[in-house]
Amino acid sequence: MVAHSATLAINERLAARRAAGERVVHLGFGEAGLPVLPSVATTLAEAVGRNGYGPVVGSARVRDAAAGHLSRRGLATVGDQMVLAPGSKALLYALVAALPGDVVLPRPSWVSYAAQAAIAGKHAITVPTPRGAGGVPDPDLLDATLRSARMRGREPGVLILTLPDNPTGTIADAETVRRVCEVAEAHDLTVVSDEIYRDLAYDPQRVPSPASYVPERCFVTGGLSKSMALGGWRIGFARFPAGELGTRALDEVTGLASEVWSSLAAPMQEVAAHVLDDPADVTAHIAASRALHERVNKAVHAEFAAVGAVCRPPQAAFYHYPDLEPLRPALARFGITDADSLAGHLLDEHGVGVLSGAVFGDDPRALCFRVATSLLYGETDEQRWQALRSSDPEQLPWIADALAALRTALRSLSASRVVFSSITSSSV
Amino acid sequence: MVAHSATLAINERLAARRAAGERVVHLGFGEAGLPVLPSVATTLAEAVGRNGYGPVVGSARVRDAAAGHLSRRGLATVGDQMVLAPGSKALLYALVAALPGDVVLPRPSWVSYAAQAAIAGKHAITVPTPRGAGGVPDPDLLDATLRSARMRGREPGVLILTLPDNPTGTIADAETVRRVCEVAEAHDLTVVSDEIYRDLAYDPQRVPSPASYVPERCFVTGGLSKSMALGGWRIGFARFPAGELGTRALDEVTGLASEVWSSLAAPMQEVAAHVLDDPADVTAHIAASRALHERVNKAVHAEFAAVGAVCRPPQAAFYHYPDLEPLRPALARFGITDADSLAGHLLDEHGVGVLSGAVFGDDPRALCFRVATSLLYGETDEQRWQALRSSDPEQLPWIADALAALRTALRSLSASRVVFSSITSSSV
Repeated sequence: MVAHSATLAINERLAARRAAGERVVHLGFGEAGLPVLPSVATTLAEAVGRNGYGPVVGSARVRDAAAGHLSRRGLATVGDQMVLAPGSKALLYALVAALPGDVVLPRPSWVSYAAQAAIAGKHAITVPTPRGAGGVPDPDLLDATLRSARMRGREPGVLILTLPDNPTGTIADAETVRRVCEVAEAHDLTVVSDEIYRDLAYDPQRVPSPASYVPERCFVTGGLSKSMALGGWRIGFARFPAGELGTRALDEVTGLASEVWSSLAAPMQEVAAHVLDDPADVTAHIAASRALHERVNKAVHAEFAAVGAVCRPPQAAFYHYPDLEPLRPALARFGITDADSLAGHLLDEHGVGVLSGAVFGDDPRALCFRVATSLLYGETDEQRWQALRSSDPEQLPWIADALAALRTALRSLSASRVVFSSITSSSV
Repeated sequence: MVAHSATLAINERLAARRAAGERVVHLGFGEAGLPVLPSVATTLAEAVGRNGYGPVVGSARVRDAAAGHLSRRGLATVGDQMVLAPGSKALLYALVAALPGDVVLPRPSWVSYAAQAAIAGKHAITVPTPRGAGGVPDPDLLDATLRSARMRGREPGVLILTLPDNPTGTIADAETVRRVCEVAEAHDLTVVSDEIYRDLAYDPQRVPSPASYVPERCFVTGGLSKSMALGGWRIGFARFPAGELGTRALDEVTGLASEVWSSLAAPMQEVAAHVLDDPADVTAHIAASRALHERVNKAVHAEFAAVGAVCRPPQAAFYHYPDLEPLRPALARFGITDADSLAGHLLDEHGVGVLSGAVFGDDPRALCFRVATSLLYGETDEQRWQALRSSDPEQLPWIADALAALRTALRSLSASRVVFSSITSSSV
């Protein structure tokens, strides 16, 4: 039995609560929460005549555009290396199914990697990430884990990395990526680098790609769901390495695609080609989105930090990953003892939706969860455009209200701490 | 290794020949070959604001529309029974993966069923269809095959039927369907009824659904690729039976969908809702399409019949399935001894693209192939609209030319027969 994806499930649950008139602070879902750029809307509207089946991999036009997009980001690519699909999720699944061996994941990591490995009948081996940033495992722990996995009869084959990372909103540094790639090469692993948040790095120069360290064994995936807020349009791509390994994998993935989803819808291929050409309005829109994400993500992060959460400062996208370990004694009064009871309490008692760290494969006893801040931008496209154009988005009433509601919830959670503070420092 | 879908592969091969300036008679691909209805284009253009992720199963609006669509076709359905996806192919795969047991298929049958079974790690057991029509196995042979499969340790679990049928363009009669459903029930098989060609039956009243015989164990799939010529838009649906078996399967399929393709693209859901409401212009467009398919399919069928092919007269869609067994001696001169060499010769020597019966799981020694007639309607949308509006589409120059080219090819194939005829009956 394949469980319903946890991220999609919480979104549906919160939408139902909201529809029932309850107030929610929706920090549970990784949707970019922004409107469609006009030139993108126009491109789809003009592509309505494209109703024929096309090549499984995508048209030559969109493959070339995707190759150009990656080439301009430091990864020289030709169209023949690219495959388009209805979402990078579908391509990640196909890669996990096609590439030999068990799957090796950072811990925590995006909910669907482990689920996809299970669907493909593979084991998932998880390796903690270093203190600095998530998405890439600690190189020494990776090496040790691979050795012991082999001794236990496992056959680790595919290492998945996330740069920038979901759930932590951080970016591994180049030295860690280089060392992890060295370990992957030594153990003959293929590397899948999920770079769907690349254009949302607050400093885009700071995203190292594993493909520059192990070019012949690295697959890169991306899509338009995050940077362009087109999650509901299902547009993803994958870059296959040049050389025999890449060509073989491309044949396998295309074979699977041809029997499951056929191709990315033809009008959506036109949209992808338009966006991946990086025209000026697209680049400006992504820059404005990135700035908004950074402001609001950091504002929410500050609320968690204020009550004593341990949390790496976000460097990308609209996520961070607090650990409420310092509040464990205060939380115990509410029966909160682990990640699931913490997330459940926040939702049931405060209408605050976050995703338990356990669903990201993290230690379920840790008081960790993912915070996604991008659904705070507004209920209407008008509000969202205002947020995009604002230089002080945290001051917009609907965002300020959500921050205040979150603050109230967090204060009541950490009440004993507040009481303690008020005794020692009555002026706070 | 999953081979590239044969139907998609021949399409890409013929497109490349055509692009190289070679003349082709493209009878190899099951694309409906017609333009987009204006109200459908408008619906997509107006749905450009729909960029959020929605429920995996599809919105309440589109599920209700799909339920209404089936209810109006004699199958009382509520929205909760429906799941939308990027193509019914994806749902067929998910059903094959989710429903327990090996897969039982009519022989011949659509290329992707067996391939999907292989991807899901299942055996495919094939059963010949009766002389009358394809898509549904002979009930007695089915019973015998299931018994012997069980004795050999197989666990047949899922029977796939195609009504109307691809590749034969025929429709099993109600009595055969009733008897096959009885056998399925006796052997505790679930039934998946692929009804994507339902609205293209020349007599729509003549399509019996297995869901009316075994309602609690029958899944029905369909989509807009064929009746609305929207193959490149990837819009499919599945109906799950009411009751525990259906609910469990819906959970499983939704779980898989949530980890592979997430959902049908939101703007495409709007298109599906519009079409599945069966507005008057959609109904009229489908009626005109159906009439065109019938005329041209029967005209091409007549060409094969004229050279002595054995071929069931088509009753639906744009397919028929000739058997050139009567020409075997004449064909041997060209080195044609089986289905693949026949299809290869037609393509290489005459630019006539058909799909070998072997790819449909048929006996590879039989001289059978599928003919798809829907890419003859024109090279441009203008020609296709003309074909749709014509009362004599076979007389349109581009269709008449293709028929003539086909006639020439078939005559040279059957030359010994023609010579023989000219001796015995010089007036022909």
